[in-house]
Amino acid sequence: MRKLPEITASETVATSRLFRVEKVGLRFANGCEVEFERVPSGRHGSVLVVPMLDADTVLLVREYAAGTHRYELGCPKGVIEPGEDPLAAANREIMEEVGYGARRLRYLRPTTIAPGYFEHTTHLVLAEDLFEERHPGDEPEEIEVVPWRLSALAELLTRADFTEARSIAALFLVREALREAP
Amino acid sequence: MRKLPEITASETVATSRLFRVEKVGLRFANGCEVEFERVPSGRHGSVLVVPMLDADTVLLVREYAAGTHRYELGCPKGVIEPGEDPLAAANREIMEEVGYGARRLRYLRPTTIAPGYFEHTTHLVLAEDLFEERHPGDEPEEIEVVPWRLSALAELLTRADFTEARSIAALFLVREALREAP
Repeated sequence: MRKLPEITASETVATSRLFRVEKVGLRFANGCEVEFERVPSGRHGSVLVVPMLDADTVLLVREYAAGTHRYELGCPKGVIEPGEDPLAAANREIMEEVGYGARRLRYLRPTTIAPGYFEHTTHLVLAEDLFEERHPGDEPEEIEVVPWRLSALAELLTRADFTEARSIAALFLVREALREAP
Repeated sequence: MRKLPEITASETVATSRLFRVEKVGLRFANGCEVEFERVPSGRHGSVLVVPMLDADTVLLVREYAAGTHRYELGCPKGVIEPGEDPLAAANREIMEEVGYGARRLRYLRPTTIAPGYFEHTTHLVLAEDLFEERHPGDEPEEIEVVPWRLSALAELLTRADFTEARSIAALFLVREALREAP
């Protein structure tokens, strides 16, 4: 494993309510010096949950996404609150977004969105053995819940409104996990 | 399909060399008004490429990622240049990052990284029938090329330095594509 580059300088160059951009000076092991921009996480990461209503039915959500200015289909997700662990956050999010809690939660793995720029980590969680339980969320309109068969994943992957790499990765990982340990 | 919320106001609230954060006012169909932050793409999107050296060997790269301040294992990727189409960008990127060009390029699908916040699109591309061709890139140090067997994807998914959701999604999609149309 290579030695990590040394951070020679660090400065905040832009700040908004949600984002902080940092400029870092880096000296690589070969002596090369560069300046890169990065976005520190600033929070506790997020969770993205695959709630299985039965062995083949995943509960997706269709929700307005301000980044792409489209309604996007994907897995329920949300920011982890201070002091909350990823599994607790996953259970809270599905109660808020799909109206179910889970008796069984399996931690799948941490993922990053674009590690060259963003520190942010998203923890992928499989939620099973669901029970009805709706908690109020903070969304501007009711989230539409869209049941989808995991056995019809190929069809989902042809849809123009199912684009999020984290949701694609999560559904494949869940399909593998359920095959290995149902 | 629901009617998109109306954008009632839009203002740049933070700018750096690479990023611009916009605050938008939104009025949803139900009358609810909110303010969200979003990061417009500002560029032409990026490509993430799965270069197959043979039917089972994918060429991954291990590269320093400033966002996570770690060396990350993943698929070669890069920003699309003005006027370039995604397949041409994919071929250029693998010449720069892994030292191969491809005689066959298959467009897999567009993906987003976190559509609630980022407009950015990453196009996933499968590159096959490779030939040796190295072009200079703009990296501060030589990129390490790591051949990996697609049939050993499960082992790759246990590694702590393979985290990027786009790379995870791309390798699963390629495995499906090669099964359906080798």
